Amino acid sequence: MTTADDAAAPGSRGPFTAAEETAMRAALDAARLGVRGANPVVGAALLGADGTLLHVGHHRGAGTEHAEVDALRQAHEAGTPLHGTTMVVTLEPCRHTGRTGPCAEAILAAGIPRVVYAVADGTETAGGGGAFLAEHGVSVAHGLLEREARELNDRWFLAQRRRRPFVSLKIAQSLDGRVAAADGTSQWITGAPARAEGHALRTRVDAILMGGGTLRLDDPALTARAEDGTPLARQPFRAVMSTRPVPDDARVRRGVAPDAPDDGLFVHLPTHDPHEALAELRSRGVGHVLVEGGPTVSAAFLAEDLVDELWLYQAPVLLGEGAAAVAPLGIGTLADARRWRSDPVGLPGGVPAVGSVGEDCRWHLAPAAPPVIEPPAVPDHHLI
Amino acid sequence: MTTADDAAAPGSRGPFTAAEETAMRAALDAARLGVRGANPVVGAALLGADGTLLHVGHHRGAGTEHAEVDALRQAHEAGTPLHGTTMVVTLEPCRHTGRTGPCAEAILAAGIPRVVYAVADGTETAGGGGAFLAEHGVSVAHGLLEREARELNDRWFLAQRRRRPFVSLKIAQSLDGRVAAADGTSQWITGAPARAEGHALRTRVDAILMGGGTLRLDDPALTARAEDGTPLARQPFRAVMSTRPVPDDARVRRGVAPDAPDDGLFVHLPTHDPHEALAELRSRGVGHVLVEGGPTVSAAFLAEDLVDELWLYQAPVLLGEGAAAVAPLGIGTLADARRWRSDPVGLPGGVPAVGSVGEDCRWHLAPAAPPVIEPPAVPDHHLI
Repeated sequence: MTTADDAAAPGSRGPFTAAEETAMRAALDAARLGVRGANPVVGAALLGADGTLLHVGHHRGAGTEHAEVDALRQAHEAGTPLHGTTMVVTLEPCRHTGRTGPCAEAILAAGIPRVVYAVADGTETAGGGGAFLAEHGVSVAHGLLEREARELNDRWFLAQRRRRPFVSLKIAQSLDGRVAAADGTSQWITGAPARAEGHALRTRVDAILMGGGTLRLDDPALTARAEDGTPLARQPFRAVMSTRPVPDDARVRRGVAPDAPDDGLFVHLPTHDPHEALAELRSRGVGHVLVEGGPTVSAAFLAEDLVDELWLYQAPVLLGEGAAAVAPLGIGTLADARRWRSDPVGLPGGVPAVGSVGEDCRWHLAPAAPPVIEPPAVPDHHLI
Repeated sequence: MTTADDAAAPGSRGPFTAAEETAMRAALDAARLGVRGANPVVGAALLGADGTLLHVGHHRGAGTEHAEVDALRQAHEAGTPLHGTTMVVTLEPCRHTGRTGPCAEAILAAGIPRVVYAVADGTETAGGGGAFLAEHGVSVAHGLLEREARELNDRWFLAQRRRRPFVSLKIAQSLDGRVAAADGTSQWITGAPARAEGHALRTRVDAILMGGGTLRLDDPALTARAEDGTPLARQPFRAVMSTRPVPDDARVRRGVAPDAPDDGLFVHLPTHDPHEALAELRSRGVGHVLVEGGPTVSAAFLAEDLVDELWLYQAPVLLGEGAAAVAPLGIGTLADARRWRSDPVGLPGGVPAVGSVGEDCRWHLAPAAPPVIEPPAVPDHHLI
């Protein structure tokens, strides 16, 4: 796929050495150790002048050091000399200061003479690192294993183009796809280890979103807590997507300090339109939303192809009736089913996308269809 | 658990040597390499006079050699002398001639002086091997790791007590627990590798059973075929459980030779009662039934706790609507959900119960609750 970004990208498109390709594959493998969300998954490999692979770093999610900085830190700690080295990275080094400093400046300051990256960063905020480096005399080349690197973050690139947060959906269901029993009871379908994974997911996001039905049935707090149950210092927004009022005594209004006044993190999204909900959250700086159901809200995001990753937790129980995990999606025949694929990204190295978590089963999935990179089919006022 | 069988079992309940316990653990591990069905899973270890573990065998399913014979064959092929050895086996050696010869006689003929088994075989047909061996001067002891050995086959023992076939249920569903789309299309939800596993399952059973809804929707042949698509020499019964007539032109009537006359393997079970269906199949010599749905038939067997193992295949697709995998089971609240547990038995050694099969996910499960070994709560005329 050729985009405007590629045409505008600085430096050459090769040739690349065999060592650079080996290093890029190592960087891609390292990128898969990261987690999906507000930031892309990125890996970086430092290559010695003699073609030796010196250090391999990766990004561990928003708020943590970028892949290049991870590799540079390793080099610093090991006392590795950087003259003559090449920084091989799966995504164009950023040049902006966000939660961390700009990587392009870090590479320049380290005196690294050559940078090879796979795919350009087309975002307005972070892009331009390649040009910055080239302007300052660094040898810059791009396009090595570009397809692999692009596929690794295809849904993240799509969300960026559409100017919306990255969306994760978590479903905890029975073997037969029910998220509650006939009487509405749903706590807890899955066991403690699966719930702990769900909580770890909450700690990585900027906002947690639920629908009005879940609010009324379960009254969850939507707070992020550490493994020992203590609330984290940085809490995500707690969003309720419902055209009905949110009761004054709902736990979601109060966050981690039930007796404290409003902490400013509760958001009422009085809409049925997930595009509107995402636009509102983005206007508050949200880069990553975790949708936690219920079935109607899950279906609303799924039907609009707004779910970028799916964490499916399944308990070894049968219910036979009760709320189905996903409300109707308007699919009439099997050929029109929405297809997904296993996604091992975001799991500890080597852990497959399908596996046991305690007594339960976890399946991490990404949409199977390659995203259509084009202007969104929603009115502009949905975007900010 | 102490049963009448234990009291009647011949020989001592120990003491056992450390080597015998090690051998029994090896036999239990080997037993798990077997497959569930008409026969229990069994492992056998041959222990040398000096405590060396010589050979470990296991049973590979109905029609194949028993675990003891597998171990004896290995010994014969390796030229291992058998004087002074001990046969350590997870289940009392059989004394009947079924599809294979009696193991008790084989052990006696081999001149093995001592037999240790974990749990008694309480079945009328196969039991009594321990007594036979003791009567012929073999040192017989039982009860070593009895609980583990009993748990390994708890559902098989239950089916035997209830004088019914062992029942496997296979479900192929979407991520959200649907076995068909809104228009009834269901072929194929899962991919070729998962369907091949399902076909391998068919080759192991004595009967395949489906309901009238599946018959009318899919008109399946219910034949067992090898991996290359050729029909196997030994075909299972093809049973339709439905109070409505089965059309003369239904494929299930014709089996592997569509143009041939009735092969005698088609069975119409005009009942809604799964106990009646199983009794009728047992009267035809069926020891293992594979239920392949649809949702109503699956629920009928599940509601009566008649499913001994569940093979759940799940495709990475979302449907949102369409037939749910399992019809209502009369479960009102989450605490009453039917619980299952992962069961690695029946999968190649080391393959976990939860895993990927091609693009799909497989979960092999067994009922979590320990079976209640007592007379069934159905009228006697349901039993044969």
